[in-house]
Amino acid sequence: MVSIDLNCDMGERFGAFSIGQDEALMEYVTSVNIACGFHAGDPSVMRKTVRAAAKKGLAIGAHPGYPDLQGFGRRDIIFSSEEIYDMVLYQVGALRAFVEAAGSALYHVKPHGALYNLAAKESSLASAIAQAVYDADKNLRFVGLSGSELTKAGVTVGLQTISEVFADRTYQRDGTLTPRAQHGALIENENEAAQQVLTMVLRKKVRTTSGSEIAILPESVCIHGDGKNALAYAKAIVKELKANHVSIARP
Amino acid sequence: MVSIDLNCDMGERFGAFSIGQDEALMEYVTSVNIACGFHAGDPSVMRKTVRAAAKKGLAIGAHPGYPDLQGFGRRDIIFSSEEIYDMVLYQVGALRAFVEAAGSALYHVKPHGALYNLAAKESSLASAIAQAVYDADKNLRFVGLSGSELTKAGVTVGLQTISEVFADRTYQRDGTLTPRAQHGALIENENEAAQQVLTMVLRKKVRTTSGSEIAILPESVCIHGDGKNALAYAKAIVKELKANHVSIARP
Amino acid sequence: MVSIDLNCDMGERFGAFSIGQDEALMEYVTSVNIACGFHAGDPSVMRKTVRAAAKKGLAIGAHPGYPDLQGFGRRDIIFSSEEIYDMVLYQVGALRAFVEAAGSALYHVKPHGALYNLAAKESSLASAIAQAVYDADKNLRFVGLSGSELTKAGVTVGLQTISEVFADRTYQRDGTLTPRAQHGALIENENEAAQQVLTMVLRKKVRTTSGSEIAILPESVCIHGDGKNALAYAKAIVKELKANHVSIARP
Amino acid sequence: MVSIDLNCDMGERFGAFSIGQDEALMEYVTSVNIACGFHAGDPSVMRKTVRAAAKKGLAIGAHPGYPDLQGFGRRDIIFSSEEIYDMVLYQVGALRAFVEAAGSALYHVKPHGALYNLAAKESSLASAIAQAVYDADKNLRFVGLSGSELTKAGVTVGLQTISEVFADRTYQRDGTLTPRAQHGALIENENEAAQQVLTMVLRKKVRTTSGSEIAILPESVCIHGDGKNALAYAKAIVKELKANHVSIARP
Repeated sequence: MVSIDLNCDMGERFGAFSIGQDEALMEYVTSVNIACGFHAGDPSVMRKTVRAAAKKGLAIGAHPGYPDLQGFGRRDIIFSSEEIYDMVLYQVGALRAFVEAAGSALYHVKPHGALYNLAAKESSLASAIAQAVYDADKNLRFVGLSGSELTKAGVTVGLQTISEVFADRTYQRDGTLTPRAQHGALIENENEAAQQVLTMVLRKKVRTTSGSEIAILPESVCIHGDGKNALAYAKAIVKELKANHVSIARP
Repeated sequence: MVSIDLNCDMGERFGAFSIGQDEALMEYVTSVNIACGFHAGDPSVMRKTVRAAAKKGLAIGAHPGYPDLQGFGRRDIIFSSEEIYDMVLYQVGALRAFVEAAGSALYHVKPHGALYNLAAKESSLASAIAQAVYDADKNLRFVGLSGSELTKAGVTVGLQTISEVFADRTYQRDGTLTPRAQHGALIENENEAAQQVLTMVLRKKVRTTSGSEIAILPESVCIHGDGKNALAYAKAIVKELKANHVSIARP
Repeated sequence: MVSIDLNCDMGERFGAFSIGQDEALMEYVTSVNIACGFHAGDPSVMRKTVRAAAKKGLAIGAHPGYPDLQGFGRRDIIFSSEEIYDMVLYQVGALRAFVEAAGSALYHVKPHGALYNLAAKESSLASAIAQAVYDADKNLRFVGLSGSELTKAGVTVGLQTISEVFADRTYQRDGTLTPRAQHGALIENENEAAQQVLTMVLRKKVRTTSGSEIAILPESVCIHGDGKNALAYAKAIVKELKANHVSIARP
Repeated sequence: MVSIDLNCDMGERFGAFSIGQDEALMEYVTSVNIACGFHAGDPSVMRKTVRAAAKKGLAIGAHPGYPDLQGFGRRDIIFSSEEIYDMVLYQVGALRAFVEAAGSALYHVKPHGALYNLAAKESSLASAIAQAVYDADKNLRFVGLSGSELTKAGVTVGLQTISEVFADRTYQRDGTLTPRAQHGALIENENEAAQQVLTMVLRKKVRTTSGSEIAILPESVCIHGDGKNALAYAKAIVKELKANHVSIARP
């Protein structure tokens, strides 16, 4: 029986500011990537999110991002490789402390937003991130875009990688995600998203915005948690997978 | 032979902004307390400071503070005990990642500034800090003001504590430090500071601002690193201790 | 005919983080207090909120707060009077630039959260705020809690003041608001809030938590914008006032 | 007699963190560009710097930068034109409040660091900055790199511009400054810097890193204030100019 991991970014509240519906989404996913206080999240949000995920037995990952709360970590910022290494190691260490204090163990690391997207194409950034993850703990799994510099860098540095595909984002011919600022970046219908997931999981292919199909390696499917219809997407995807006898399980 | 640890707060630069003269001071101290990015320090400063300290074999500690870069962590801010717990656990985890990546192990935690001073008097804050340190790693040493709520809370929670005394700060009758905003808070002459250290180490007493002597437990002496004469103080203290056959060694 | 101003705090979003329902509430109020980027708001949120308010002809005020985004400006922080003066002048200047660029004029200033509450009781803080407002522009109206040190300081420095009362907060015997952390601080029913407003506006009295009535001077009524039922409260208050022939108009 | 303005970036301290030697440099320059709290400076530093400059009768300008304290506003960050407009208007408004409270009037605006350098080449950014300055006050002078998109945008929007040249930076063939990260970006000898200034002022030319000479328009010369030899450079430049009968005066 085919099995797939569903992951979701969580803990993206900040102080009195709210984003997402973490509790409800935790019923549908098997892995969570928890913001570490740079692009979102604060120490108290981190503690609460980690405890909730640990209680449910989900795979818990750190979700480090750029130090850009106002831009939600989605603005391109030019950092040196050393700065990237430092900010990832810092954030992974901070989140790990909460995970261990909750009696659990950190399972994976997945970069966020512009950090993820720039490093998917730029091997020097990808290497800096992978090295920081390895130096934090060489047993951590490293999550990156399927076929990107991220997963390559993870392999090179000696980490086990998890190749990620996206439920509600469209793909370009070169395998990268259509940038959010462009028209057609998001799949705006939950049933289409569920179909894309099913095709990816069963056929290991995805149709790109230019019409062609490309091969991808789906080891985990990202479901976004910050849209207002996040829950509807999660339900549609889980329903479609189950109807097609795909089991949903953490890696 | 009597032996004493000399500690200094370090890594208090931020981006292009410089404070202190860490490299030079590392020649004189045996323990360092490294800022964790909240009141001072940033991930890159943390990495560099940790590596330098590890290379010299110094005892490396986390120096968590309030999230108040502009106030250098010295402003009183009213946080809940839960927020205190969360911010300490976060910062200890972040710094520990750099220490372990440098092939060393985190040895101790010492709170900074207003966090240190408020918790020295307020048992609920002290307990929150001590619990966070314990939850990060129960083998960490917990540094607090001699005779304060900090060391008491450390003992209660099950941590080994290090009782700290200050070279260049004056003491009040109740054993607390004279607040920085008050006249006479600082000992402005390095030889007087060296004399106070010698008296504390050899006689386990300190003269207070009201003239009386009180008992203290000197397990580590704090030398400040952010004054312009920090190096002169360090040299005078080390010279005086050596002249009186006190050995200087990490705990 | 009796007339009253209804004011609401607005522009409290930050980057991708959303709070409040400003557009809808602007239909019910006559004055807005716009966050200035310290406790909430960012330059882009400020521009959009100012433009929307200017278009509707509302009285536009600056709503300066403590530099504490995570605590939403509600944490007590100990600043010197000089620091208070500086942070208020800074924020008023920043917001005024957006108001003038929108072809309007800044009408008033109302401090936020802990800045408001601490200064309501502490004359040195109140004076620092009032002086900053005066130095920004001596024709600005200064909004403060009815009967507090804020309005006194405004008068002393030479500003025209607006005495504020609250729709959904309970009052203590000394005329201060019940702190948010205490039980019973908020009036949790919109009809009770509307009744409190009506009593204040028509009888210039309010019943305190100890049962007694105290005199207040209602020149503007604050309606909160950040609760999930903010709109229901606004509607109930406006309905009750109109039903009792109270006209709603900016000062 | 030829006359030239000397400008210097100032107010770049932050809280306890110190940069520059403003007081001493104010003896040598005729214009100051004061940081506005985003890349450096805080409200208290702004007040003190503004007052000192007003007392000396210097031309006072706002020096807005990217919201990047850690990177000192020198990191490239991708903002939309609207975000650029908003952050410039915000900062100009904030600084202007301090200048007016000091009984003076804001004279000019000069963007800082990456904001300056990116906009020097990119007309959409330059236009956004110029529009924000114009909307803040159409009588403000707009300072930009000689021959760049900045001064062009200023003219287009209807502002009076001041064409700036640099004392201690080298120029590339296209008239832009050699990026700081590149070798040879800085002129590391104060006498060479003084010679470059003299040549620029008297001959309106500068030798580029490729050997050729290009035309420039020197209406103000920037002297950096954050290097450790800033004072030596200022003295050498003033001495050289005076020895060659160039008068030093604000625009």
